[in-house]
Amino acid sequence: MSVFARRRDRLREVLAGAGLEALVVSHLPNVRYLTGYVGSNASVVIGRAGERVLTDSRYAVSAREQVDDDLEVAIGPGDLTGDLARAVADIAPGGRVGLEAAHLSMARGAQITARIAEADAGVAVSPEVGHVERLRLIKDDQEIAAIARAADMVDDALADVLAGGLVGRSEREVAFALQTRLFEIGAEGPSFEIIVAAGVNGAKPHAVPGPRGIGTGELVVIDLGAIADGYCSDMTRTVPTGALPDELARAYAVCAEAQAAALAAIGPGIGCAALDAVARDIITAAGFGEAFGHGLGHGVGLEIHEAPRVAREGTDTLQPGMVVTIEPGIYLEGLGGVRIEDLVVVTDDGARVLSHSPKAAISSTTV
Amino acid sequence: MSVFARRRDRLREVLAGAGLEALVVSHLPNVRYLTGYVGSNASVVIGRAGERVLTDSRYAVSAREQVDDDLEVAIGPGDLTGDLARAVADIAPGGRVGLEAAHLSMARGAQITARIAEADAGVAVSPEVGHVERLRLIKDDQEIAAIARAADMVDDALADVLAGGLVGRSEREVAFALQTRLFEIGAEGPSFEIIVAAGVNGAKPHAVPGPRGIGTGELVVIDLGAIADGYCSDMTRTVPTGALPDELARAYAVCAEAQAAALAAIGPGIGCAALDAVARDIITAAGFGEAFGHGLGHGVGLEIHEAPRVAREGTDTLQPGMVVTIEPGIYLEGLGGVRIEDLVVVTDDGARVLSHSPKAAISSTTV
Repeated sequence: MSVFARRRDRLREVLAGAGLEALVVSHLPNVRYLTGYVGSNASVVIGRAGERVLTDSRYAVSAREQVDDDLEVAIGPGDLTGDLARAVADIAPGGRVGLEAAHLSMARGAQITARIAEADAGVAVSPEVGHVERLRLIKDDQEIAAIARAADMVDDALADVLAGGLVGRSEREVAFALQTRLFEIGAEGPSFEIIVAAGVNGAKPHAVPGPRGIGTGELVVIDLGAIADGYCSDMTRTVPTGALPDELARAYAVCAEAQAAALAAIGPGIGCAALDAVARDIITAAGFGEAFGHGLGHGVGLEIHEAPRVAREGTDTLQPGMVVTIEPGIYLEGLGGVRIEDLVVVTDDGARVLSHSPKAAISSTTV
Repeated sequence: MSVFARRRDRLREVLAGAGLEALVVSHLPNVRYLTGYVGSNASVVIGRAGERVLTDSRYAVSAREQVDDDLEVAIGPGDLTGDLARAVADIAPGGRVGLEAAHLSMARGAQITARIAEADAGVAVSPEVGHVERLRLIKDDQEIAAIARAADMVDDALADVLAGGLVGRSEREVAFALQTRLFEIGAEGPSFEIIVAAGVNGAKPHAVPGPRGIGTGELVVIDLGAIADGYCSDMTRTVPTGALPDELARAYAVCAEAQAAALAAIGPGIGCAALDAVARDIITAAGFGEAFGHGLGHGVGLEIHEAPRVAREGTDTLQPGMVVTIEPGIYLEGLGGVRIEDLVVVTDDGARVLSHSPKAAISSTTV
């Protein structure tokens, strides 16, 4: 039995527990997780009494190559919604069938619901959230190995590019050099648009790399990730280019202390909100609370942002096999920013840090 | 008055016509079109009695730089849904307010609707589709100039990479070389994952470039686009590497004939379904109808796929200022594929083709 078939069996157990006869899975990372399908247009109906992949003619060849031999693949001539409604009617007549409410648009949800009603098989449609995502929360060894490979690629690419120095190059050049190295190293791609934000641009947590040359005495925020076997990595380092203004040096030291404290606190059983607080309390006590506007971290896997949410509003509790980022940041408008991020897998007795790039050691007499 | 302010005024006219007091715009390309905001998280409430951009602290600095000075920017401390509900209550009390039903998930739509109800301002929520997209259908001169620049970048990158030859290089190497040239030429990025599909892989319209070396006597489908000033381009060329099997040569010649006929038929007033038929009828008459499984083309602008849909199911009529692709394809499983795609702007009396890359001239004695 393939890993995909096992995952579908686990989903069927979840569906039974939720009183669902079937789930229509439309979110592509969920489709990939459950079937191995890699493409831009497929839905899967996973039912307790059957299962069917629906895609279009562009993927007729590749879909059959990718999914388990015993998984039925239906190639639509164009009317995928009708095919989907028929699959639901075939697999779950008279049953309650879930739609992925977090991923289907209101318009598409209404359209599918209407077509299922037309199929007249007594199906009751139910908006559902998170069934597959909750399975994806805990990574198996193969998934963790892929994420670790993606993390290694990022370490290697960053080391190679930093060896060429930063001063005088533009943010854009550095970002492209990183992307090029990731490709050369064998990444399927960057897992998101690489961020290189120098000087005052560092105060924008999601700055777009620009043409401005990097100067001396700046902090350069470099946030990048790779994809290996479909799995993402994510890491940020903030690199000083010479002596820093006191306030920036102090921000760096505080951020580094907060990050180290959060890493040390990770382990099975800690709540995501409590973990966020470990870092946030240190930053707040140093007077930078207002300058740390985002959450401490997020899950990483087939998607660059997935569950669990490590933030004040986080409701999950860490368990072995979860993979999360730990990335406190301090953003000082008009001055610069710092963010330090590691990718971490929760283990039975603590954590394994998957990011190995060295961190700048910046102390400040004023901390 | 900025171009963005003019667009918002036009949207207000549309809203008045549709009996809406305001529209909550959440789809990022629509947000960018209406405000200039470039980032990953913002909503805008555009009302007949006011307007407000809502984003989070990561974009506090950049959002204020990007949008018109007189446009209010509200920076959420985290509860953007609450801020959005308050903005709707402030701007459109007692009115009918639209949500973008094609872009908001069912779950998010339900959440926003609930929060608006809690705000208790007598607002009636209405799922709406396509108001901003219909404005975006007709490009102004500045938009067309950006798309043309993006199209030129693709022409240049392809010429440079083809000059190095294809045989012996892998699909992946060629794709990366194209991406690198696009960057060097000044593109903001590729507008989608570049496709290089050689030999039998060409039969998959959305193949992922692989490690296999390109051989002689193959057709190589190369589909790429660039982004310039936020606007996309899109072009496909199919390049032969030496003498082809008869059936492939015939498929190429038929596809080229169909593409040329469709280009010649473009002009104001032709329906999108009729235009699709011009190409499809030629391909079907040659016996390849089943092998052309997708539509003839699509609109291009801030998004790589946008309205109008040029397909059998297309309902729009071409008008001056629309920008569309014309891309018939013939996919022969186990043998190879061909797709030829130009980017075209509809003019007052016909069309201007924005793609200038030469097309292979392949004739077949068996056509």
